[in-house]
Amino acid sequence: MDLHILDHRLRVTSIAKNGLVHFTHPLIKLIFLRNRTRCKFFSLTETPENYTVVLDEEGFKELPPSEHLQVESSIWLPLNVVSNGNASSSSQAVGVTKIAKSVIAPLAQQHVSVFMLSTYQTDFILVRENDLSVVVSSLEEEFNIYKEVGGESVPLNCQDVSNGLQKNGKEAIQPTVHPVLIPKNQFCVMSLDPDTLPSIATILIDVLFYSSSPKEETHSSSSQDCIEFFSFSLIDGYVSLVMDTEAQRRFPADLLFTSSSGELWRMVRIGGHPLGFDECGIVAQISQPLADSDISAYYISTFSFDHALVPEEDIGSVTDMLQHQRTEPATS
Amino acid sequence: MDLHILDHRLRVTSIAKNGLVHFTHPLIKLIFLRNRTRCKFFSLTETPENYTVVLDEEGFKELPPSEHLQVESSIWLPLNVVSNGNASSSSQAVGVTKIAKSVIAPLAQQHVSVFMLSTYQTDFILVRENDLSVVVSSLEEEFNIYKEVGGESVPLNCQDVSNGLQKNGKEAIQPTVHPVLIPKNQFCVMSLDPDTLPSIATILIDVLFYSSSPKEETHSSSSQDCIEFFSFSLIDGYVSLVMDTEAQRRFPADLLFTSSSGELWRMVRIGGHPLGFDECGIVAQISQPLADSDISAYYISTFSFDHALVPEEDIGSVTDMLQHQRTEPATS
Repeated sequence: MDLHILDHRLRVTSIAKNGLVHFTHPLIKLIFLRNRTRCKFFSLTETPENYTVVLDEEGFKELPPSEHLQVESSIWLPLNVVSNGNASSSSQAVGVTKIAKSVIAPLAQQHVSVFMLSTYQTDFILVRENDLSVVVSSLEEEFNIYKEVGGESVPLNCQDVSNGLQKNGKEAIQPTVHPVLIPKNQFCVMSLDPDTLPSIATILIDVLFYSSSPKEETHSSSSQDCIEFFSFSLIDGYVSLVMDTEAQRRFPADLLFTSSSGELWRMVRIGGHPLGFDECGIVAQISQPLADSDISAYYISTFSFDHALVPEEDIGSVTDMLQHQRTEPATS
Repeated sequence: MDLHILDHRLRVTSIAKNGLVHFTHPLIKLIFLRNRTRCKFFSLTETPENYTVVLDEEGFKELPPSEHLQVESSIWLPLNVVSNGNASSSSQAVGVTKIAKSVIAPLAQQHVSVFMLSTYQTDFILVRENDLSVVVSSLEEEFNIYKEVGGESVPLNCQDVSNGLQKNGKEAIQPTVHPVLIPKNQFCVMSLDPDTLPSIATILIDVLFYSSSPKEETHSSSSQDCIEFFSFSLIDGYVSLVMDTEAQRRFPADLLFTSSSGELWRMVRIGGHPLGFDECGIVAQISQPLADSDISAYYISTFSFDHALVPEEDIGSVTDMLQHQRTEPATS
């Protein structure tokens, strides 16, 4: 398998809920006016806590400094696994499950923090630029590693980055087992032709920027056990949307498409209090057992919490598995 | 003819050019998300000086207080002339020309300030609420006056408003003759089905909120003698757009429509320095001679200047007329 280190230098930021109005202007530009910006990697995820915005340096320039904007201090690089033809894995599972053993587990072992961003098209594994040498030396046995430079994939000369030492020691630390929340909404992972993005502009603007307006009150009582979660990304020209079925009903059915199976997904939110960016092994903790059971999963990290999406029909066994993990911590 | 005092209480405001980013959120809501707001009268006009926003009190609530927002202190009421069948005028002219003698001239004589807002559909004559009694007593001979209340037109009992006195004295003041500017752009006055507004959302957003971005540099040199002017209004569900032919080319030709003649218009901007809101007779000064020559004209007041639009084929004679007015001030 090939691992590509993509040619984007990313910032991970968070906009406070009540600060979104101050960012409407740059965000609409980044989402809808592609010829006004050179940003190529943009992702916006609304959660109950805040808006997580992950974007490249060109996009980051558009965000005005503000008390409402928190910025993680590191530069993050997105990694992408490309299975070249006959991959060794016999798994039919998609998403983070496919890379649990080959990428997520080794990085966790090396104490490399990852920030996951699954999209309709692929899964991006974000690692800190400073961890790149450790990442490369951890993964070079399993993967052919390429660095994308100006649109071309250049095989990585591993000496280039791995200056020998692996700075993140190897002692096994018993990982924290975080509490999980399993909201009742059903989610869809969708895409659309980027040329049709203007057709859904007003609906998308409404959902993204005005969904906290009073109009929403009407159904808030019925969705006590549901979570507010909406994710939009526009990465290298590809659009990906993750939304619950209630939001989906607001969009024209003929423009958004999902995988042929039209699967619905349930969410497992990981973390009782904000996770921060330094703890390692959080993704591994959940993706490993999913891989063992061959259960597909999308995985979306945000500024405060992590979110795994698993097929609706598997939520029962995932719940059992997580409960087991939490009541018998020694087994993991 | 009938004169309707419409059921909107309006504010006339101005947003500084560099302050627009702070108003993107409420303005997009007012333009595109009709079911999120109870605003029924909204107009936004970009000029080189600023953005003039005229809107009812429901809309005004949406604008956050800001150093970038100037608000004229009065409440303004929109008047609207409805010619009921066989009007006395034999004129084929449209716009402000049609009401020059019946409305504009008498109000100027009574020293009532007016703020004009021509749209594709009609011409709104805004007068200060405080001037209403003078307005009614000035126009009640010529018009049947109705007040719209909750969607119904109620014939106005003139004693209701005209408490006898006409506070604005009648002495003839020689009006200031303002300098005019005649830019080279050609303008169109257009409309579209409000249901198709979402289809042009991204283009309209681009034009309204991002037109000062660097991308514009390319053609700024060629348009030295052109003026930046774009007007959008959404009033009682009707959309009106005034833009130059360069902006028009950015919109899909099949959605916007103009009058069957497809006329192009040239602009006369009135005022060498900002006109303020207290001087009377500015509209009269230009609409009277246009009416004498039966030349159609739209008229759009903004926070700083007034703008008349006349048919392209008449710009020569209008220019002559204005020159004459300015070189021989005693004749007017």
